[in-house]
Amino acid sequence: MKYIDINSDLGEAYGVYQFGNDEGLLNLVSSANVACGVHAGDPTVMRQTVERALACGVSVGAHPSYPDRQGFGRRVMELSAKALYDHVVYQLGALSVFVDVAGGRLRHVKPHGALYNVAAKDRSVADAIVAATWDVSPQLAMYAPYGSELAIAAADKGLAVVHEVFADRRYEADGALTPRTHADAVIHDVQAAIAQVVQMVQTGTVIARTGETVNIVADTVCLHGDNPDAPAFAAALISTLTEAGIQVQAPTQE
Amino acid sequence: MKYIDINSDLGEAYGVYQFGNDEGLLNLVSSANVACGVHAGDPTVMRQTVERALACGVSVGAHPSYPDRQGFGRRVMELSAKALYDHVVYQLGALSVFVDVAGGRLRHVKPHGALYNVAAKDRSVADAIVAATWDVSPQLAMYAPYGSELAIAAADKGLAVVHEVFADRRYEADGALTPRTHADAVIHDVQAAIAQVVQMVQTGTVIARTGETVNIVADTVCLHGDNPDAPAFAAALISTLTEAGIQVQAPTQE
Amino acid sequence: MKYIDINSDLGEAYGVYQFGNDEGLLNLVSSANVACGVHAGDPTVMRQTVERALACGVSVGAHPSYPDRQGFGRRVMELSAKALYDHVVYQLGALSVFVDVAGGRLRHVKPHGALYNVAAKDRSVADAIVAATWDVSPQLAMYAPYGSELAIAAADKGLAVVHEVFADRRYEADGALTPRTHADAVIHDVQAAIAQVVQMVQTGTVIARTGETVNIVADTVCLHGDNPDAPAFAAALISTLTEAGIQVQAPTQE
Amino acid sequence: MKYIDINSDLGEAYGVYQFGNDEGLLNLVSSANVACGVHAGDPTVMRQTVERALACGVSVGAHPSYPDRQGFGRRVMELSAKALYDHVVYQLGALSVFVDVAGGRLRHVKPHGALYNVAAKDRSVADAIVAATWDVSPQLAMYAPYGSELAIAAADKGLAVVHEVFADRRYEADGALTPRTHADAVIHDVQAAIAQVVQMVQTGTVIARTGETVNIVADTVCLHGDNPDAPAFAAALISTLTEAGIQVQAPTQE
Repeated sequence: MKYIDINSDLGEAYGVYQFGNDEGLLNLVSSANVACGVHAGDPTVMRQTVERALACGVSVGAHPSYPDRQGFGRRVMELSAKALYDHVVYQLGALSVFVDVAGGRLRHVKPHGALYNVAAKDRSVADAIVAATWDVSPQLAMYAPYGSELAIAAADKGLAVVHEVFADRRYEADGALTPRTHADAVIHDVQAAIAQVVQMVQTGTVIARTGETVNIVADTVCLHGDNPDAPAFAAALISTLTEAGIQVQAPTQE
Repeated sequence: MKYIDINSDLGEAYGVYQFGNDEGLLNLVSSANVACGVHAGDPTVMRQTVERALACGVSVGAHPSYPDRQGFGRRVMELSAKALYDHVVYQLGALSVFVDVAGGRLRHVKPHGALYNVAAKDRSVADAIVAATWDVSPQLAMYAPYGSELAIAAADKGLAVVHEVFADRRYEADGALTPRTHADAVIHDVQAAIAQVVQMVQTGTVIARTGETVNIVADTVCLHGDNPDAPAFAAALISTLTEAGIQVQAPTQE
Repeated sequence: MKYIDINSDLGEAYGVYQFGNDEGLLNLVSSANVACGVHAGDPTVMRQTVERALACGVSVGAHPSYPDRQGFGRRVMELSAKALYDHVVYQLGALSVFVDVAGGRLRHVKPHGALYNVAAKDRSVADAIVAATWDVSPQLAMYAPYGSELAIAAADKGLAVVHEVFADRRYEADGALTPRTHADAVIHDVQAAIAQVVQMVQTGTVIARTGETVNIVADTVCLHGDNPDAPAFAAALISTLTEAGIQVQAPTQE
Repeated sequence: MKYIDINSDLGEAYGVYQFGNDEGLLNLVSSANVACGVHAGDPTVMRQTVERALACGVSVGAHPSYPDRQGFGRRVMELSAKALYDHVVYQLGALSVFVDVAGGRLRHVKPHGALYNVAAKDRSVADAIVAATWDVSPQLAMYAPYGSELAIAAADKGLAVVHEVFADRRYEADGALTPRTHADAVIHDVQAAIAQVVQMVQTGTVIARTGETVNIVADTVCLHGDNPDAPAFAAALISTLTEAGIQVQAPTQE
């Protein structure tokens, strides 16, 4: 039996402000990256999101960010490695307590936004996030793009790595994502995007933009909640995966 | 052997801003109430304060607050009981992870500033704090003024209560603090303040403003770090307590 | 010719977060209370809101708040009168500069949320807001509930007062709003609500909950943007007002 | 008669937190860069700082920053040029209203911390700050390092430029500051630092690290309030300047 995890960023509301489509996604995804009250979320949103995710059988992870609420964690900030370590520890602690209180257990960490992008390329940033995660619990898995500095740093430390792939993004011959500046960076055809995921899971390969067959590890695929088409896409993806004999579930961690 | 705990609010620096005299107090107190990054503190300050406290053998507790950094948690805010519960859970989680990472264990909770004052008188606020503390861990002790709603709520729930007394405050015949609006509310004489603490510990009583001998439970006494005389007062207090055969130590919790 | 102003709270988005229905309301209202980047709004939202309002010919006012973004300014905070004065000056300055840069002029002040409610009843809070407004510019009008402490304080200082009435709220025989705790506090029938406004403007009276005819001054009526029915209600209100020969326009301030 | 301005960053306290030595510096400097409540300061600190500066006859400018209080504006943030423009307009408005209320007039703008450093080298950032300043008022002067992108952008726009020089920093043959990574970047000898300033004002030149005589424009020199030696240095500097017939005063702007 083949498996893949579907993850989504949840709990990004704040005070009176709604965001995304948590209710719709919770019935589709197998794992949730929950905002830690820094780029988004607040204590009440965090508790409610964790409770709902656990009630839906969704695996809960933390979604730590640069400390920048006004920019929603999407702006790069020059933090020292030690400061970044401290911020990640703080956010993992703040979220995991809600998981514990709700009777669950925090399963993974996926950095948010600009921090995710920087950690993919900058080993010192990746190491700070990995060290914080390890110190909080070596049982936590790190969600990281396949081939990224973050994936390598996590593996070197001994954390379980859940390699994230993208349904609608094109890959280069070296396994890297085609940069968004390239005209062919995004796969706009839904069936092609779904087919790419199925191939990744079934064969461990992807067809690069330039035609080569490239090895890849596809442990999880991300759905974006702020995309109104996400639920429909997810339903089609899950249907196709199921027909192909691939089960959607969170990485086994027990 | 008689015992008393001496606690102080620590870790109230923030970014470039210093506050209080943590270094001086850490060698005097037996327990620390550490700011949780909300009214004061930030992830780096929290980590450093926890590390220093544990290195000095000081017992570490959380010092949760209303969410009001600009007002340093000294302004009353009208939060619903449920929102307050969520904020306290969040802050206990954010602090306790630093204690865990440093190899220690979070021992107690003492609400900060306006929240402490409101919880002393308002049972619903006290209940929200107590419920949050209990849900995070029933092993946590609650620091609360003797006779307060917070002390009663914590005891009713089953939490260990550490009754806090004040060296330099006068008490009424019913065991309550003389209100600060009263001319005799504060004991300005250092020796009289120290003597009041010694009597409280040795006899379980205090002489009320109006002359009566009143029963009281003195488990801990608070030193204020923003008072420049605090280290000298603490040294004199500890010296007198020691001569009287009273040992300064954190409440035994193992 | 009779006149009435229709005002709405606008510019309450924040970063990635949308709020209300500014686009829909801007074509209906005659004046806008624009958030000042404290309970809601941020510099970009403020600039865009001001530009759009001026482009629609909508009069722009400031909507200052308690400093509580997470609570959206809906929670009472115990600020000293002097601190409150400073916060209001700050917010008026931050908003008015965007109005000036866009070639307009700040016309009025309407406190937001909890601050509006407290200022209606607490003269010292009202005085702090009025003093801040006056010091920023004596040309600014104060939007305040008819009969409130805020309206009285503003008039005593010499500010123009724009008396706010509520279409869908019932009034008592003394001119005060029927408290929300009362079963008949809200007028649920749309036609009755509109008729109440028309009567207020045409006759300067309102029928109290208990049947009396009460004098009232109706200078402006508020539409709530977070109510999805607001645009439809506004259209019906404006249509009825126009048929009754009442023109919707901002208070003349030149 | 030769002139030079001495400026310092003031009003960087926040809530309960003190910072620097505003009282000591206000009697020495001729102009103040006042924090705008974003990297530091709050409405009360802003009002008090402006009142004190004006009472001392000190010229008041705004000290806008990246929106990062926890990092005190010392961390680079990737804001778009338009977002940065909006943040600067906001901060100038928030500060200038306190100057207006106190009966003064805002005279200049000096970006703070990381924003100052980035604006010195990045023309698009410099242009955003300059555009915001111009739109708020073309009468405002821009404080900028001699030869920087910020100085050039301000001059191109038509703003008055006040060229800032550094007493204790070494210069290169092209007029740029010797990078701090260089062993000789800082002039540690107080008399040499003072002599450098005197030469700059009297002759419009500075001796480069490599011995060349380089042209420079010295309109203002900055004192750092968080340096405990600043008042003593300032007193010695002023004394030497006066003996040399150089008067300390803010740039004439009327």
